[in-house]
Amino acid sequence: MNELKERIARDGKNLGGGILKVDSFINHQVDPGLMDACGREFAARFAKVGATKILTAEISGIAPALMTARHLNLPVVYARKTKPITMPDQVFLTLAPSHTKGRMVELIVSPEYLGHGEKILIIDDFLATGSTIHGLVRLAQTAGATIVGIGALIEKSFEGGRAALKELNVPIESLVCILSMDGDNIVLGDC
Amino acid sequence: MNELKERIARDGKNLGGGILKVDSFINHQVDPGLMDACGREFAARFAKVGATKILTAEISGIAPALMTARHLNLPVVYARKTKPITMPDQVFLTLAPSHTKGRMVELIVSPEYLGHGEKILIIDDFLATGSTIHGLVRLAQTAGATIVGIGALIEKSFEGGRAALKELNVPIESLVCILSMDGDNIVLGDC
Repeated sequence: MNELKERIARDGKNLGGGILKVDSFINHQVDPGLMDACGREFAARFAKVGATKILTAEISGIAPALMTARHLNLPVVYARKTKPITMPDQVFLTLAPSHTKGRMVELIVSPEYLGHGEKILIIDDFLATGSTIHGLVRLAQTAGATIVGIGALIEKSFEGGRAALKELNVPIESLVCILSMDGDNIVLGDC
Repeated sequence: MNELKERIARDGKNLGGGILKVDSFINHQVDPGLMDACGREFAARFAKVGATKILTAEISGIAPALMTARHLNLPVVYARKTKPITMPDQVFLTLAPSHTKGRMVELIVSPEYLGHGEKILIIDDFLATGSTIHGLVRLAQTAGATIVGIGALIEKSFEGGRAALKELNVPIESLVCILSMDGDNIVLGDC
């Protein structure tokens, strides 16, 4: 997707260690027009998968997932990383390693909003090793739901996440792929 | 705003202790059409305040703030509660008591995205005691920015937040007011 690719080329920063800084337009400051365009693109690519709900993880998955949900006219659920007091005692919970936090984080969804028979489209900001998305897959499958597609704004294709998710046999769509991040460079390509 | 008022009357739950559960449509599962309508309403009410940026707090402020930003065509910044590794060492940081967490939380904004001369519209999900919004006000003022308006989806008017923010002398707009939450009841009214 050219609009996102050009923005990463212009404003993204390679901080080293595989960390891509995109917090001027995705995950601290957010460009709502860009996020809306990304949501529209995801909605077009996943128009025929029959999703009944979108699932993402707080925090930085919320903006792209919400905009995709708007265009598909579906509810969106974001997995919480800490259990709020409004959630029932019995929850779906899994652990996933966080690349940017350097530790395991909990992903928690209330059984009120993830149920048997739902067809789940997962949308997140990054697809890197795929560990967060795998965590969301486990939550959905534990709830008796089916995964029908996976979308990420940015795929770091050198981290192998796509291969790790292949076994699910669902469409995986990334809007921009980062092919390598050697030195200060960010090499962008098609997915 | 009738659409939100009717939704709270139908799906909101009074959990006692002043806790209103709205996680089927605002802050765990999100209804994107409702959030978009709320964003449009905020955009209309704040059309003339001259905002240059919207400021909110993660996590549940993101959806209404993003939709408002979309309609006003402005960037939105969400204050982080933990400092990500992509953020510089020097940040704007304040502490605010969290009603639902029962402890103080940090609110952190990078100086890259909150600067001198900006005109800030604060949008959040709840206005209760006003402590989170006061935290956002402190961050903006420390950065040399000016607050030009404050909007909340839901105001718990019995908690006094509006009076505490009056000294700022800016428009405060809530889309729905909760007048009282005695017993199992939720008494909704105009603000």
